[in-house]
Amino acid sequence: MNKIQIGIVGYGNVSAGVVKALSLTSDMELKAVFTRRDPKSVKLQQGDAPILPISLAEKMTDDIDVMILCGGSAKDLPEQGPFFSEKFNIVDSYDTHAKIPGYLKAVDKAATKTTAIISSGWDPGLFSLMRLYFGAVLPDGDTYTFWGKGVSQGHSDAIRRIPGVAHAVQYTVPVETAIEAVRNGEKPRLEARQKHLRQCYVALLPEADKKEVEKTIKEMPDYFADYNTTVTFVELSELFSKHGKMPHGGMVLRSGNTGENTHNMEFSLRLDSNPEMTGSIMIAYARAAYRMSKEGLFGAKTVFDIPPAYLSETPRDMLIKDLL
Amino acid sequence: MNKIQIGIVGYGNVSAGVVKALSLTSDMELKAVFTRRDPKSVKLQQGDAPILPISLAEKMTDDIDVMILCGGSAKDLPEQGPFFSEKFNIVDSYDTHAKIPGYLKAVDKAATKTTAIISSGWDPGLFSLMRLYFGAVLPDGDTYTFWGKGVSQGHSDAIRRIPGVAHAVQYTVPVETAIEAVRNGEKPRLEARQKHLRQCYVALLPEADKKEVEKTIKEMPDYFADYNTTVTFVELSELFSKHGKMPHGGMVLRSGNTGENTHNMEFSLRLDSNPEMTGSIMIAYARAAYRMSKEGLFGAKTVFDIPPAYLSETPRDMLIKDLL
Repeated sequence: MNKIQIGIVGYGNVSAGVVKALSLTSDMELKAVFTRRDPKSVKLQQGDAPILPISLAEKMTDDIDVMILCGGSAKDLPEQGPFFSEKFNIVDSYDTHAKIPGYLKAVDKAATKTTAIISSGWDPGLFSLMRLYFGAVLPDGDTYTFWGKGVSQGHSDAIRRIPGVAHAVQYTVPVETAIEAVRNGEKPRLEARQKHLRQCYVALLPEADKKEVEKTIKEMPDYFADYNTTVTFVELSELFSKHGKMPHGGMVLRSGNTGENTHNMEFSLRLDSNPEMTGSIMIAYARAAYRMSKEGLFGAKTVFDIPPAYLSETPRDMLIKDLL
Repeated sequence: MNKIQIGIVGYGNVSAGVVKALSLTSDMELKAVFTRRDPKSVKLQQGDAPILPISLAEKMTDDIDVMILCGGSAKDLPEQGPFFSEKFNIVDSYDTHAKIPGYLKAVDKAATKTTAIISSGWDPGLFSLMRLYFGAVLPDGDTYTFWGKGVSQGHSDAIRRIPGVAHAVQYTVPVETAIEAVRNGEKPRLEARQKHLRQCYVALLPEADKKEVEKTIKEMPDYFADYNTTVTFVELSELFSKHGKMPHGGMVLRSGNTGENTHNMEFSLRLDSNPEMTGSIMIAYARAAYRMSKEGLFGAKTVFDIPPAYLSETPRDMLIKDLL
């Protein structure tokens, strides 16, 4: 059987996760990685797939079955999604929740002869799926999503931009008492502050003013002002040695009722590596994109549209026999 | 908008759960319940849908959009599944795991112009879905399923058939240390005895021999011999007052790796009422069966084949906006 040929656009943490996830499949292989940088400056962490300039991609429509877009949601994907889905089946992990409907529309317009699965990480992605399943089977109830404990790239970056900061890592931490209240069926009303804590580990430049930096962090609107935030100053070496990994996780919970009876549904992830999990999920959805394109199921899709069996390397009859 | 017209075949605990779940939807309504018993002997726990003899069902193909089969997997469904799916879209919760492939085939043969979704409870059903998703995204790993704490109808019935037993309730209880080992990523090899305990509450008839009954239970092959089983004798009144509900639940866990990194995925249910949860899930899949039949997606399907969005009363664009 011919293996599904995968291309990757952009090389960073998530792409490295995709490459690793690909090595755990037997039905897919990496054909090439495309980059806007000088290809010579990019080195894969594993495997020996060619690194090519992004401009070459267009000429490789016959060589690549699914293109996995690993660029950022802010600037890269709004351009790359519509551009690549015109010629390739694509998978991405577009994660600007509020802008997903507009992005979906733009990709759908381009994907007239391809299958394009957007927002296929774990949130959006698996967590979204759970929110849908939970609400569909227990319509009378409330769903809660908690994130962490894990590193938030966006919040870490926000701290790093503060003058005087050499480097920083921010952990999002769910509030245990809030989770317990949900599990107890209390259906609490929770503000941002009551759901998550924000723990910041910060290394300063020599001339920096500790108090000023701490104040700037804690008062930063959107990012920190609405949360209970702790700031711990550490040496740069400690930041790299103790906070250099990218763990994450979280949970989706629903407490729902059928009359007087209460039912709890809970899904949780504990991840050693956020980007490797995201890459693993994208690979499963790349398989689905390939299969759906073979059936002519074109257009922009989300995880909500994909029959689960399309995700697995195992044939449907074996899934039914072994897992149903 | 016309509501989806639901028929129910057979009236028992699960059907009562289906009726309750239907009352929580706004897009579906109960048209009729069909029974093999004397219709006058059946009384719905809620609502005022007509109770009709099962022989009338055939004449109501124009009145019913989806027929929900609530009969037992041992004797009822092997006949009713193929019979009803020839003329109606159906949903059932066929749960004899080992015989699912054969049953699927028989139903698929009949469902040439209908959509028939089989085995749509929580296990098989939601738990099966999780086993599939978990394995598809983390192929290098092990999945574990634990059940309980909850009442096992089959095990309770097995005890009730023992001479001298007036009534009995059996709880399946997961072994916490086994769950912890899985959560810790130890990937333990677990025998039946190491995963679940069996707690039996038994009321005896006056002439019964306690020791003999206890021995018969604990040595019963398949049901109890392979487990650590406790037997507690109680008064019949206590059995009804303290053990009269049907709670259940359980969890699916997977510990998987991407190279040296470990990821844990976990799905759990805690249910006040097993049949009401099963009924709620069947109702969501009835909605999917109706929608798929409108699109000509005929044949026997499982939860693995259903795009998640088909389950929800909420339109796809709102799901994408609110839940993705």
